[in-house]
Amino acid sequence: MKVDGVPYRTIWLADDGWAVEIIDQTRLPFAFVTVRMENVDDAATAIRDMLVRGAPLIGATAAYGMALAMQADASDANLKAAYDKLLATRPTAVNLRWALDEMKTLLDPMSANERAVAAYRRAAEICDEDVEICSSIGDHGLALIRDMHEKKGADEAVNILTHCNAGWLATVDWGTALAPIYKAYDAGIPVHVWVDETRPRNQGASLTAWELGRHGVPLTVIADNAGGHLMQEGRVDMCITGTDRTTAAGDVCNKIGTYLKALAAHDNKVPFYVALPSPTVDWTIEDGRDIPIEERSADEVTKIQGRTASGDVVTVEIVPDGAQGGNPAFDVTPARLVTGLITERGVCDASKDGLKGLFPEKS
Amino acid sequence: MKVDGVPYRTIWLADDGWAVEIIDQTRLPFAFVTVRMENVDDAATAIRDMLVRGAPLIGATAAYGMALAMQADASDANLKAAYDKLLATRPTAVNLRWALDEMKTLLDPMSANERAVAAYRRAAEICDEDVEICSSIGDHGLALIRDMHEKKGADEAVNILTHCNAGWLATVDWGTALAPIYKAYDAGIPVHVWVDETRPRNQGASLTAWELGRHGVPLTVIADNAGGHLMQEGRVDMCITGTDRTTAAGDVCNKIGTYLKALAAHDNKVPFYVALPSPTVDWTIEDGRDIPIEERSADEVTKIQGRTASGDVVTVEIVPDGAQGGNPAFDVTPARLVTGLITERGVCDASKDGLKGLFPEKS
Repeated sequence: MKVDGVPYRTIWLADDGWAVEIIDQTRLPFAFVTVRMENVDDAATAIRDMLVRGAPLIGATAAYGMALAMQADASDANLKAAYDKLLATRPTAVNLRWALDEMKTLLDPMSANERAVAAYRRAAEICDEDVEICSSIGDHGLALIRDMHEKKGADEAVNILTHCNAGWLATVDWGTALAPIYKAYDAGIPVHVWVDETRPRNQGASLTAWELGRHGVPLTVIADNAGGHLMQEGRVDMCITGTDRTTAAGDVCNKIGTYLKALAAHDNKVPFYVALPSPTVDWTIEDGRDIPIEERSADEVTKIQGRTASGDVVTVEIVPDGAQGGNPAFDVTPARLVTGLITERGVCDASKDGLKGLFPEKS
Repeated sequence: MKVDGVPYRTIWLADDGWAVEIIDQTRLPFAFVTVRMENVDDAATAIRDMLVRGAPLIGATAAYGMALAMQADASDANLKAAYDKLLATRPTAVNLRWALDEMKTLLDPMSANERAVAAYRRAAEICDEDVEICSSIGDHGLALIRDMHEKKGADEAVNILTHCNAGWLATVDWGTALAPIYKAYDAGIPVHVWVDETRPRNQGASLTAWELGRHGVPLTVIADNAGGHLMQEGRVDMCITGTDRTTAAGDVCNKIGTYLKALAAHDNKVPFYVALPSPTVDWTIEDGRDIPIEERSADEVTKIQGRTASGDVVTVEIVPDGAQGGNPAFDVTPARLVTGLITERGVCDASKDGLKGLFPEKS
């Protein structure tokens, strides 16, 4: 999407044709800084330290990480080492494993001197495929927003609540949850987005607010606590979130707090959609309770980053001395609370039958 | 309760016998600072700028504000002016109006030279009555915690989730939601408190974590997003929150986000209790949707206060330039989601009949 009028993707080949560049998303929303990755360690660091985040972009970065590894040393041993190193960066991200398996399956049977070129080519394809998938998600979600707009009437903006960041910054382009919103905005449908702050890492207040705002989409940042009340008051027409992992039965594992919004949407009869590229479906699991939940550092809860009046970006502590914090990073929204899954092949029920209908080859 | 072993109330007469002292709660949790109030403007500022907060403490501060006004000028005109000034500070706080009406009803028929002494005496009584009410709430809630502890077994701590701050800092002493927890802790029942951060003003992370920690109660600060997941995992045995206003039918208006936790508790069959002193019941309203919700400054969402590594307390911005924020301060939890109301007269159903049973004189 556009940043101040300039089109960007979140990951791209450097001008020299072998290094890979990304946006350092930890510097957003206060600074727009790109980072050059030259080896597999750079890629692993980028994923682990969340310079890149979001399932599809993590996958794309891992794919390019494999390409960087092959560029340096295309031996069997290094292929295995790079795979293991990248896989260990984020245990919950099913897309990470998918992209690494894609690369490994392709590269394993090749001779060493073929691997680098093939790896770069496949990484680029993975990026292009992701853009196509997200664009399709956007088209299918656009139809839902258009329907809502027609129901509300011409002058009324469609109010959409989203949680965390499932925008173009989380993918290669377009985003998942935000793709329909960008498509609607570009099509001239009036939209307004309630952006959940998304504590503790504030991906909503920092990333979603930044990318929507830079593209021109009207938005209001709210505390994570506010969404239920806004739904009670009829000020939310629909919710759209992303997901890190969806089970074969439609349970949705997403950023901590998603479940609370789904409960509120259900209680207030607000449609609750989850947008996902099919590679984030884990066809091996049906019950979301079987998904292990990553417990991240308590520092994310007890500290927060922001910009002082003088422009310095600093980290401040927000709890009393000695107070401990707890930080489960994801929760599971049961399929019964999800109105529909927006995939690249269309919208389906959040159920085994719904997913099977769109992806019969998986059953 | 105790601060580092020293017993405190949240409001008390200064040694000179006429000024009134409070704790500046905006300085917590990083500094423990008391403030001397010498006139009605000091009291109005303390309420409006939230140096004091919590329904009962707001009422007590308003009562002493009237006393300070009478001390300066006990005329009919000043009585009315002080009442109006204090009433305008926080529109949602029913306890504020209750305390002011108490004072006005007492002082109106008096001659000017009787008013100051009577006002101080009544303000002190209002404080003592609040302490007694909160202590009784604590005793009734203690029984619920004791039952839960017996159900879990001797070695298991009772895990209690709370939202915002309804502790002794929000009252004159003991607190409402936290009174049962202090009573349980003091009685040797092992308890552990999940403290919701409570964005945007972070009363949980700053005040609840501070007061529980200073008293010795084990706690973990969590993002507001985390509670639903913890309930799904069986790591919350019960919820206890306070309330700013409860309707005659048991709907609960409390800090924004309470509704989301009540939904999650209901979905996971976790008991959800609301502790309240009966003066915060608004007997004139049945449907919580009739309660006007205060919209506070967007700055509370877009900025946050914390302490830097060098010890300075600073305010930092957490959204991109130009992003607007929305900030509804309260929400309404429908009575159907509330397991019980813990009052100074006992625990009752959150319903018209439940409240009538405990407070027959109100029907």
